[in-house]
Amino acid sequence: MLDLPRFTAAAVQAAPAYLDAAKTVAKATDLIAEAAGHGAALVAFPEAFVPGYPYWNWTMNPVAGSPWFERLYRSAVDVPGPEVEALRAAARRHGVTVVIGVNERGAHSMGVLYNTMLTISSSGELLGVHRKLVPTWAEKLTWTGGDGSSLRVHDTELGRLGVLACGENTNTLARFALLAQGEQVHVAAYIALPVAPEDYDMADAIAIRTAAHAFEGKVFSVVSTSVVSPEIVDAVAGDDAAVRTQLARPRNALSGIFGPDGRPVVEPLVDDEGIVYAEIDLARCIQPKQMHDIIGHYNRFDVFSLHLDATPRTPLVVTGRDAELPAPAGEPAEPEPRS
Amino acid sequence: MLDLPRFTAAAVQAAPAYLDAAKTVAKATDLIAEAAGHGAALVAFPEAFVPGYPYWNWTMNPVAGSPWFERLYRSAVDVPGPEVEALRAAARRHGVTVVIGVNERGAHSMGVLYNTMLTISSSGELLGVHRKLVPTWAEKLTWTGGDGSSLRVHDTELGRLGVLACGENTNTLARFALLAQGEQVHVAAYIALPVAPEDYDMADAIAIRTAAHAFEGKVFSVVSTSVVSPEIVDAVAGDDAAVRTQLARPRNALSGIFGPDGRPVVEPLVDDEGIVYAEIDLARCIQPKQMHDIIGHYNRFDVFSLHLDATPRTPLVVTGRDAELPAPAGEPAEPEPRS
Amino acid sequence: MLDLPRFTAAAVQAAPAYLDAAKTVAKATDLIAEAAGHGAALVAFPEAFVPGYPYWNWTMNPVAGSPWFERLYRSAVDVPGPEVEALRAAARRHGVTVVIGVNERGAHSMGVLYNTMLTISSSGELLGVHRKLVPTWAEKLTWTGGDGSSLRVHDTELGRLGVLACGENTNTLARFALLAQGEQVHVAAYIALPVAPEDYDMADAIAIRTAAHAFEGKVFSVVSTSVVSPEIVDAVAGDDAAVRTQLARPRNALSGIFGPDGRPVVEPLVDDEGIVYAEIDLARCIQPKQMHDIIGHYNRFDVFSLHLDATPRTPLVVTGRDAELPAPAGEPAEPEPRS
Amino acid sequence: MLDLPRFTAAAVQAAPAYLDAAKTVAKATDLIAEAAGHGAALVAFPEAFVPGYPYWNWTMNPVAGSPWFERLYRSAVDVPGPEVEALRAAARRHGVTVVIGVNERGAHSMGVLYNTMLTISSSGELLGVHRKLVPTWAEKLTWTGGDGSSLRVHDTELGRLGVLACGENTNTLARFALLAQGEQVHVAAYIALPVAPEDYDMADAIAIRTAAHAFEGKVFSVVSTSVVSPEIVDAVAGDDAAVRTQLARPRNALSGIFGPDGRPVVEPLVDDEGIVYAEIDLARCIQPKQMHDIIGHYNRFDVFSLHLDATPRTPLVVTGRDAELPAPAGEPAEPEPRS
Amino acid sequence: MLDLPRFTAAAVQAAPAYLDAAKTVAKATDLIAEAAGHGAALVAFPEAFVPGYPYWNWTMNPVAGSPWFERLYRSAVDVPGPEVEALRAAARRHGVTVVIGVNERGAHSMGVLYNTMLTISSSGELLGVHRKLVPTWAEKLTWTGGDGSSLRVHDTELGRLGVLACGENTNTLARFALLAQGEQVHVAAYIALPVAPEDYDMADAIAIRTAAHAFEGKVFSVVSTSVVSPEIVDAVAGDDAAVRTQLARPRNALSGIFGPDGRPVVEPLVDDEGIVYAEIDLARCIQPKQMHDIIGHYNRFDVFSLHLDATPRTPLVVTGRDAELPAPAGEPAEPEPRS
Amino acid sequence: MLDLPRFTAAAVQAAPAYLDAAKTVAKATDLIAEAAGHGAALVAFPEAFVPGYPYWNWTMNPVAGSPWFERLYRSAVDVPGPEVEALRAAARRHGVTVVIGVNERGAHSMGVLYNTMLTISSSGELLGVHRKLVPTWAEKLTWTGGDGSSLRVHDTELGRLGVLACGENTNTLARFALLAQGEQVHVAAYIALPVAPEDYDMADAIAIRTAAHAFEGKVFSVVSTSVVSPEIVDAVAGDDAAVRTQLARPRNALSGIFGPDGRPVVEPLVDDEGIVYAEIDLARCIQPKQMHDIIGHYNRFDVFSLHLDATPRTPLVVTGRDAELPAPAGEPAEPEPRS
Repeated sequence: MLDLPRFTAAAVQAAPAYLDAAKTVAKATDLIAEAAGHGAALVAFPEAFVPGYPYWNWTMNPVAGSPWFERLYRSAVDVPGPEVEALRAAARRHGVTVVIGVNERGAHSMGVLYNTMLTISSSGELLGVHRKLVPTWAEKLTWTGGDGSSLRVHDTELGRLGVLACGENTNTLARFALLAQGEQVHVAAYIALPVAPEDYDMADAIAIRTAAHAFEGKVFSVVSTSVVSPEIVDAVAGDDAAVRTQLARPRNALSGIFGPDGRPVVEPLVDDEGIVYAEIDLARCIQPKQMHDIIGHYNRFDVFSLHLDATPRTPLVVTGRDAELPAPAGEPAEPEPRS
Repeated sequence: MLDLPRFTAAAVQAAPAYLDAAKTVAKATDLIAEAAGHGAALVAFPEAFVPGYPYWNWTMNPVAGSPWFERLYRSAVDVPGPEVEALRAAARRHGVTVVIGVNERGAHSMGVLYNTMLTISSSGELLGVHRKLVPTWAEKLTWTGGDGSSLRVHDTELGRLGVLACGENTNTLARFALLAQGEQVHVAAYIALPVAPEDYDMADAIAIRTAAHAFEGKVFSVVSTSVVSPEIVDAVAGDDAAVRTQLARPRNALSGIFGPDGRPVVEPLVDDEGIVYAEIDLARCIQPKQMHDIIGHYNRFDVFSLHLDATPRTPLVVTGRDAELPAPAGEPAEPEPRS
Repeated sequence: MLDLPRFTAAAVQAAPAYLDAAKTVAKATDLIAEAAGHGAALVAFPEAFVPGYPYWNWTMNPVAGSPWFERLYRSAVDVPGPEVEALRAAARRHGVTVVIGVNERGAHSMGVLYNTMLTISSSGELLGVHRKLVPTWAEKLTWTGGDGSSLRVHDTELGRLGVLACGENTNTLARFALLAQGEQVHVAAYIALPVAPEDYDMADAIAIRTAAHAFEGKVFSVVSTSVVSPEIVDAVAGDDAAVRTQLARPRNALSGIFGPDGRPVVEPLVDDEGIVYAEIDLARCIQPKQMHDIIGHYNRFDVFSLHLDATPRTPLVVTGRDAELPAPAGEPAEPEPRS
Repeated sequence: MLDLPRFTAAAVQAAPAYLDAAKTVAKATDLIAEAAGHGAALVAFPEAFVPGYPYWNWTMNPVAGSPWFERLYRSAVDVPGPEVEALRAAARRHGVTVVIGVNERGAHSMGVLYNTMLTISSSGELLGVHRKLVPTWAEKLTWTGGDGSSLRVHDTELGRLGVLACGENTNTLARFALLAQGEQVHVAAYIALPVAPEDYDMADAIAIRTAAHAFEGKVFSVVSTSVVSPEIVDAVAGDDAAVRTQLARPRNALSGIFGPDGRPVVEPLVDDEGIVYAEIDLARCIQPKQMHDIIGHYNRFDVFSLHLDATPRTPLVVTGRDAELPAPAGEPAEPEPRS
Repeated sequence: MLDLPRFTAAAVQAAPAYLDAAKTVAKATDLIAEAAGHGAALVAFPEAFVPGYPYWNWTMNPVAGSPWFERLYRSAVDVPGPEVEALRAAARRHGVTVVIGVNERGAHSMGVLYNTMLTISSSGELLGVHRKLVPTWAEKLTWTGGDGSSLRVHDTELGRLGVLACGENTNTLARFALLAQGEQVHVAAYIALPVAPEDYDMADAIAIRTAAHAFEGKVFSVVSTSVVSPEIVDAVAGDDAAVRTQLARPRNALSGIFGPDGRPVVEPLVDDEGIVYAEIDLARCIQPKQMHDIIGHYNRFDVFSLHLDATPRTPLVVTGRDAELPAPAGEPAEPEPRS
Repeated sequence: MLDLPRFTAAAVQAAPAYLDAAKTVAKATDLIAEAAGHGAALVAFPEAFVPGYPYWNWTMNPVAGSPWFERLYRSAVDVPGPEVEALRAAARRHGVTVVIGVNERGAHSMGVLYNTMLTISSSGELLGVHRKLVPTWAEKLTWTGGDGSSLRVHDTELGRLGVLACGENTNTLARFALLAQGEQVHVAAYIALPVAPEDYDMADAIAIRTAAHAFEGKVFSVVSTSVVSPEIVDAVAGDDAAVRTQLARPRNALSGIFGPDGRPVVEPLVDDEGIVYAEIDLARCIQPKQMHDIIGHYNRFDVFSLHLDATPRTPLVVTGRDAELPAPAGEPAEPEPRS
């Protein structure tokens, strides 16, 4: 008889040590320890958590923001690199699966920063390095988009685990590309966004998308969002009252865990720092699949055929018998084994 | 300067004259008149409205339900046919665009019933005949699935109009196939479903999907659901108290209009008969597209490529110089011109 | 509410006036009158009934049979021609639909005889001229195969009517080509075949195929077979005792009417002359379609696609502005209007 | 001179150890041993034999049947997996070719169960994994349809071997798709169906189809059907007298071996458990082909052209230079080599 | 019972009154009378009989031959015109079908002469005006080729009658274009050709082609060839001994009647003037068709499809609502009725 | 300067080792050696040489002939297969081009035998596998017709080489289809036919057709016919005196080589076993083309357009991404590259 995973998930809602990668990683390892202490087997962190989100794109013009780009570039992390090593060690030490967002420095160009989600197994293996495909609106001033090679679901002892960053959860096709790989547990990582247009309620916008993905796929969805700390406000707004007001707007963050019926398993956390815990029992996904199984009997793959081009896109493709040039693009130096 | 449509939409929540196509069409024309009287330019009706939904599939075993199949087959409508003519005349008379669900009799086989959504222009033209791709769970006992040829968005004076039936709104790929054609106004037609498993809250399940489609696509979404009338309860349950209880379960229907931020424009109507009216102003869709435009700058068509096979699937493909054999499958007699 | 035809069908089991077209047509019109007097609305005659079947192909070698070919060619019928006119008049006079097999003389070549099934409407219209696609074994010595242009189901007041000749009922694809056009009443015309190999029981072979077509398609199947009369024995066998014995072999013919469950509606008639009557009620076909509807929900036209090339195959294709050359092939002069 | 296979076939009529895959496989291996002891070279088992047929779909409504779905899902088998290994070992050990039906768990989705026929060579190779294309009527509540990729005839030392599950034997086109590949020995696997509508005689319905396929194709057809054991009655009906009566209806199963003339080689077995043995001598198929060879001289491939789309239908098609994402759909992990 | 024509055919081997149309027509009417007196129902004359063949093309260079062109142009006939009227009167008077070759003056241009075969019915109707498609070798210096509009078989009381001129009988496709129209009696008209290259035996070349057409089509073939009279030698060669020798070469002409087995019915006539008579019994064509019927059972019109473009080719095609310009090309003024 | 092939051709007139493929191939290889020893570069064998012609179709009725069909099926050859390998080896060893007729067993059906002409290059390559399109009269009882895919002319060092089997040389369109591909050397393979109707002189019938093809196309034509050996008479006639007399009829075979003027290059051989040798000098074909070039200046492709449908006709057309089903029809395993 089939046995399905059942475990506790932790959705972290927290602020980084702004633009300080080492300190943020230290805070993350503490939070991993705390969550593991509460029995969590999966700990999800926000998008761009290490070392924080480039709010200046939303509050000043691009030329004024230019020195901030350099500051972020200098404080970003290499993959692999010491920050990643520290996170892998924490995961291994506590035996938990960790998903966390980082600003990844492009190895091949000083203009390249990626908004990258790392997935680390409970034995400390770096399972996934997913670079956000399209930065959202003002984020285009900072980040370079990734390619299709990282849209992968990972087979873990907690089930088949997939990750998308922020606005990617709006992208119907990106979401389906994960569901189609048999995703069972989805992690959606967001940042607090008090700076969006006024009628944009970030908490609602997160909840709608999390519910939809869970309902459509009959999966559990863990959502983790960052928090705008006073430190961030000081750093970004300084004395500018208008920006301070803007950054103080409520309902800018929501974290929690949603079930396969599209409803939250426990009450989500809005705006405040904290960890939301809930039980994930994959057996709860079987019976709802009878109603809709959009990767099975409830779809029509004779009618719809979604192609995912997983080609890694590098600035140069070297071919030929003796193509031993140094790797031209910022491929992770330790390519993860594809299972 | 671009002028974008702005108009009143009406979402009808009503019960049919059960298994009586002529009477149901008469009721529908009355409701069209009423909605037009309130200024509506678009009137959306529930799925399978003419002449009603096969509840017996959920309340009895298939063999017991077999005579009910014949009853529905005999009372279903032909497309084209007198019922469709009456609906087209009503649309033309009142100058409103109408979307309505019918049980369509397959012209070529006595085993074929389609769950079909008709789209009728304000001049009475039959714009679309969309046959639901996959019947949902117990519905598979009654309906034959359609093919990809009808997944089309229609250019109307109200904007680009798309329609999906019930559980199709769960299908990420079907939804994207409409959005990708530039859909601006979506109609989602449902039936009241008190008979689903106990933990399935149909009102919630409708709201989650309507919100998600509107938010992902930055479109307006009009949702129309049928009602379980006492007449239906008597017909289907008879004296069976358990079935009567089952059919009386609340939160089985929700109708309303949702905006491009994923939130309802006006309060939705739950369970009761009535018409929900709201203003649709397509200009409201422009600015949110800056944040996410999943059919534009916010997608990656180098990475994702969704193929829609629009081949009409007929039991026989006739070729040859004088291939004038009678059309083997029940293709709509008035195919709309492909723009 | 849908009304479906309900009527009496007559399956004629009879011998022709051998190699005398005029006399055989006179016998046929008498039988039409008799069946109409018993209330029949559909009268089915055997294959090659006018003026009989070329048994010599089975009892002598081809060269010895050669003068018999000339004899059959001279006594065959033209379509149109006086024999067809007489049959049309009888159908019109009695208001019955008639299906009958004839030896059709090819208008363009003295080497061409077709094994042709005529379908005549109750108003005397020549609905169909179907030329058997492949003559069976020894029949190849006499008949030329037809083309795909005549594989048509006819819309009549008795339902959608299709016809196949003898061994064509073994051809899975020919059978499906009719079912796919919505066939509801099938006529299978056979000849008595005492001359087949010893282990070939013609009555069984007819029953197996009739049952299968009715069961697969959920249709009614009317089967009509000819009889080997003493006159035929004298003509073909003369004093040859071995051939006389061969022609006297029992279980060489079966006529009757089978229902959509694959079972005979009334007891079939074996070997003897007579008319089998049974009621055909098309409403009986609806419920069985829920189990299997191979032209609807129970097939997969994304997987299987049967193409029928309906090109008329003529020895010469004449084109050009004034292409009024005499019709090169023996097309029926009164082509039925293609609806 | 050509030598054609001649061997003993065994058609098993038996009940599974209901919903217990391991015990059912043990019973199957015992039956393989028994049949091999009687000289059988081919052993055919019923459809869905491991671990049994979902009768609840026919005896209760879908929602009530929902927990049964989960129970079947949990007790189904993976392909490959330990149950398949055990069957392969038994085939290899006894040197017999085995065809057996299983409930296959979809690797990629918890809503996917396939009704799968496994073909295992006498050396233990897994030759074929055929997923039933369309579940029949109430079965649609449980099984997902397969695609065209598995409609294959296998070259074995017993001749060219093809398999269809239950109602697929009604599908004219599915049958022809096997015949067209040169099928010589057909296995038709059924389940006991006492629960069909009253006028549906399952034993007759099996015999008609088996006879037709054998006669049309001039092939041998081995038909194997399951039995409703008291254990199954207890499990499904419990104390419900009506359901107990329903399940006790006679003439619900038939197993046997039919020859190329469409007649059974030995008396078929109706309802009771047992093994039917008969000799299959492929040389018997040559002479009947002179009368009708529907894949040769007796068809018209200029007129009829059957296309089989063998595309595997997966939820996601991954492309690209390093497209090593995890296989998105539950393809068999050990794909048989395509010759 | 079918009755087939049986009659006497006459193949005329004769010389014209060289370059004198009126006298040649007078000679022809005398020969018609003579043949009719011998019971002939069909009288075939040579190619270009009225008023003779342009031998100068073969015996002098083109510039030297130029005045001869004018001479022929002036002595050619108009169709219709007095010479044709005289021939029609003779046919009507004697009740015989006549086929005769003429030099036809192009009505629209003084550079146009056609090598034209006239077919005149026994009632004097001008059935066919066939212009040789391609003049042969040196003939290209004189004649303009015709178009496909005249490649017609005529329904006469003698059977279906076709005609080709000289080298057209070498053209496989031209021959088949007539056979395909059901040709039963073929007329091949030639001229005496002593002027061909030395190894070209004209009598053999005629016999080979006549035999082949008769054998391939199982038709009767009537071949008629002209004779080189002393008058022609004097006119063309004058005192040139070499040319006189050339024109005196034997085996330059052959006339006769061949049967459907490809063999002459009576001994052909070589070189001398005279009339060959033979009986044509179309019933003799039936039995050989069993062996080969290349327009029926012995061809494959799914594989071969011969298209004949019968468009009349005129120097100007006038279109438009009021296209009442004078007929631009030399169409016969009395277009024959197309039956 | 163009150099045209000039070589010796050998037309073999011989009997097979009846119904023994291995022995017949051994005899063929001996004859190849003998012909090569006489300087032949092209060796043509009769139709159906391996392992002989089914005379029983002409001497007994079809049912009596049925066991003979099985006997021929069992002794026929597979293409490719050991017999073909032996022939290829002999061609390669002696450096001669070989054309030979075989009974080819259809790989996909036990009812399929093809009358196949193999063309083997002097390097042993299997250039062509041409299956006779329409079996002639009584042959229809044995052979299945081929399709248009094999009507190909092969470019060899001896010129462009085409092949037709027996009655195909009667088919105007088949002949033109080869000429149109630039055929220069034609091989016509026949069988001795003493069994045709009495007035059918096979030697004449062969000569007429060979002459016609050579004359029309200005090609060389090599004709090879089989011989009725005493062994064949004993096998087919046994003690039946009438059949023995029939098989002894003279003028049943003719072999030889014909030139582009339609006349034999050397005296043909009638009835007796032997090899006819003659020189083929393709340069002799140039000058006659000035008179008639029916694939060039002497045809009118604006008027005539012959279409050849070269589609291979298979019982099943498999499509799809991984359409690696076993080839359904017995396509030759070594398809020649299409130049």
